[in-house]
Amino acid sequence: MEWKDFHDKRFDTANDETVRSLEPFFYPKNVAIIGASGQKGSVGYTLFQNALSSKLYKKNVFAVNPNHPNVQGHRAYKNVKDIPQDIDLAVIAVPAPFVPQTILDCNQKKVEAVIVISAGFGEIGNTDLDAKLHEAVANARHTRIIGPNCFGVYVGDNQLNTTFSEAHRIQMPKNGSVSFMSQSGALGLAILDWMGTQQFGLGKFISYGNAIDVDESDLLEYLGADDKTKVITAYLEGAKHGRKFLQIAKRVTTVKPVIVLKGGLTEETHKATASHTGSLAGNAALYHALFRQTGIVQANGLEELFAFAKTLANEPLPAGNRVQIITNGGGLGIITADQVIQTGLKLAQMTEATKTGLREKLPKTATVSNPMDLVGDADIERYKIAIDASLQDPDTDMVLVLVLFNTPAIDETMIDYLADVRKKAKKPLVVLSTGGDFTYQARVKLEKKGLATYAYPSHAALSLKALSDYAAWRREHG
Amino acid sequence: MEWKDFHDKRFDTANDETVRSLEPFFYPKNVAIIGASGQKGSVGYTLFQNALSSKLYKKNVFAVNPNHPNVQGHRAYKNVKDIPQDIDLAVIAVPAPFVPQTILDCNQKKVEAVIVISAGFGEIGNTDLDAKLHEAVANARHTRIIGPNCFGVYVGDNQLNTTFSEAHRIQMPKNGSVSFMSQSGALGLAILDWMGTQQFGLGKFISYGNAIDVDESDLLEYLGADDKTKVITAYLEGAKHGRKFLQIAKRVTTVKPVIVLKGGLTEETHKATASHTGSLAGNAALYHALFRQTGIVQANGLEELFAFAKTLANEPLPAGNRVQIITNGGGLGIITADQVIQTGLKLAQMTEATKTGLREKLPKTATVSNPMDLVGDADIERYKIAIDASLQDPDTDMVLVLVLFNTPAIDETMIDYLADVRKKAKKPLVVLSTGGDFTYQARVKLEKKGLATYAYPSHAALSLKALSDYAAWRREHG
Repeated sequence: MEWKDFHDKRFDTANDETVRSLEPFFYPKNVAIIGASGQKGSVGYTLFQNALSSKLYKKNVFAVNPNHPNVQGHRAYKNVKDIPQDIDLAVIAVPAPFVPQTILDCNQKKVEAVIVISAGFGEIGNTDLDAKLHEAVANARHTRIIGPNCFGVYVGDNQLNTTFSEAHRIQMPKNGSVSFMSQSGALGLAILDWMGTQQFGLGKFISYGNAIDVDESDLLEYLGADDKTKVITAYLEGAKHGRKFLQIAKRVTTVKPVIVLKGGLTEETHKATASHTGSLAGNAALYHALFRQTGIVQANGLEELFAFAKTLANEPLPAGNRVQIITNGGGLGIITADQVIQTGLKLAQMTEATKTGLREKLPKTATVSNPMDLVGDADIERYKIAIDASLQDPDTDMVLVLVLFNTPAIDETMIDYLADVRKKAKKPLVVLSTGGDFTYQARVKLEKKGLATYAYPSHAALSLKALSDYAAWRREHG
Repeated sequence: MEWKDFHDKRFDTANDETVRSLEPFFYPKNVAIIGASGQKGSVGYTLFQNALSSKLYKKNVFAVNPNHPNVQGHRAYKNVKDIPQDIDLAVIAVPAPFVPQTILDCNQKKVEAVIVISAGFGEIGNTDLDAKLHEAVANARHTRIIGPNCFGVYVGDNQLNTTFSEAHRIQMPKNGSVSFMSQSGALGLAILDWMGTQQFGLGKFISYGNAIDVDESDLLEYLGADDKTKVITAYLEGAKHGRKFLQIAKRVTTVKPVIVLKGGLTEETHKATASHTGSLAGNAALYHALFRQTGIVQANGLEELFAFAKTLANEPLPAGNRVQIITNGGGLGIITADQVIQTGLKLAQMTEATKTGLREKLPKTATVSNPMDLVGDADIERYKIAIDASLQDPDTDMVLVLVLFNTPAIDETMIDYLADVRKKAKKPLVVLSTGGDFTYQARVKLEKKGLATYAYPSHAALSLKALSDYAAWRREHG
């Protein structure tokens, strides 16, 4: 296996049954929206609209509403059992007290997958209703359940949208290979929206809420086996079955990266998570150690989750932890080197042969060192010399290219050049560029061409550290 | 003095002479561009164009070029001495070997302020020329000099632009009260461009390069005394006269915040800075301690510099370090609380009276705690109840409002409400909102109305920590 193609290794799942049972959540034949509504702004209205918005599914979506025979111009059935077609996915958005019976109806109809959007159970201390829900779930043997108290599911490749995100407030992500699962619905929504602005695209999005049946372990197993998912990201407050989750993670991480943002790191927030989705958050240090032992990449904050996802989706795995910084801005190079060193990565020391070659080719004003400062009037030719040398240098594992696009000597051809060199390079090569709108547009163009770019030195440094740590794990375990 | 108006305290400068001598760099009568050029893309071309672009100055800008009598349709003089008018600011962009004589010419002409853009002296090891430059500077008694090897100066209120930024690559900042000084030219350019996308605006921008005459201490003294500057930000690799700088800082920070991003924190980057602007960078731990002792707010990275600047420009000083988090997304609240606690700030514990009042007014689904989770269907009324209570609660010093704008219950009126409450509140009140383009637009609208907003929990938490630390310094010293 080439490190460049590390994503292509297949996952031998330990539990085919789990994987198969979750398939209808993402690739159903017919979908029922139970609680579909004609009242604009309601959850049932938006859910039905979203489900209809997928071109592939618009003819296979059915409304269920006990009070209205017609919803948004579509026939509505009184009960899911009244729908003549087989239904393999049902989405429930009825008031909480009706949820247990609705689940039993779905079970009778042999609906294989049910997403419960409705909230108002254990998470707000409604223990009686929670007990009834548990009983219904235990009796629903034909049915797997995501939720309750969740935001739904979105699938990149078939655009099946069972979330209640309102179209004008959110830009749905393009199809891609980064999947995301979240206990928290609202945070999941924010991340879905953020992904819509990104170029790498989404595989599967799953907000799983209280996890009464399908939990993070099941989803990890599924995403591990999912060919469309190359990088798994997750927001977790705790794991329902911690040991099971880590056992699965240990296998999945030998095949593809798993990035986890852990909520509830401190004693105080730990308590708060308990009231949030009814899940017990673990001890921070313990989780940190367990993540390390299972090859999970831990993100400390949203910006790290976002930066790590695009880096691990785009870049090949490095052979070591030595970074060469190339820059046209001295100060930016210094700040970046500070950040690289602070993460624990090493500044690459080029061989004497590489340095001699560079001194011959670069002007006297450039500094052949690390950071390599090509100075403010550096053009694309100077970058080519520096990047080629770094890619060939045996003592360099990763190349961090800093480009200040505001300088006059840099033009649009720089973008094509970087895209080209990224395609050919067997080492990670990422781009850091700080500035305003002009620079932002340059970064977007680079990302459209498959590069990982960053606005801030810390994001670049931490992302390369995550990549390097994951590569070390794969060298040992996969 | 009210903490809300902490910016209005006046600075009694220890050195009126320094302040007066630097005035022509920012508010000259007549400006000469020495090395003004007709060749598109050259530094001399852009410099002349930029100087002419200020409406206030277009008639007071003079070109000097020994070879061409006409530059960009304007008469050009062979030597600065040939200009009939008095010149109080000259910008030099001639080849390095000609710089010493040009400085002497400016001195003879009694030009009070000279900016030397040209590079190629000590910073690239050209010691002979550097010696000649030092000699010329020593003999130029009538003249203060910024540079060489610098990017120039930009002034927010009169839009005088003596940088060589190209208009199509950079969006110049609006007029405002945050000033910035940088040794590094290219980094300064990136920051200038970034400021162009921000709503708080720029006071003065100064790239001072090798600091052969005017150094960071002089500029700090000037900006300390400058009424238009409410927050001073700086990128420093080292200080030319460390003790002097810290003495001035200790006085300035009793009047207005000084935020410093220190480059060259590690042994390796320390070495690199020496070759960059010929300045010796100090020991990281030592600087950190010195900054603390002088009330300087230290930013670790560009994103912190940016976030701290807008927070200290917009917010009143808090009475303590206790933060109340209010959110419509449980997970985001948890992550943010984790970050707040990690910075060393405290989660506010509301009084029992506050809690009782909130429990009466808020729905059962909301969690009256910290974070206070108003849950996903929270509307503006629910936010009003929570924010009013937090502002009135005696055990709360700062309010961190998390708004997920993607949720259906939040509409545009939220922006006006938050702007209104920010104006009236005597406590810091900042907004965190994570998401895609829709959310970004909401943040921009909020910032236009004078709020400090953030996309990431860590930026919000670190900014409140900086604000709280600076408030503690002011309680003791100012």
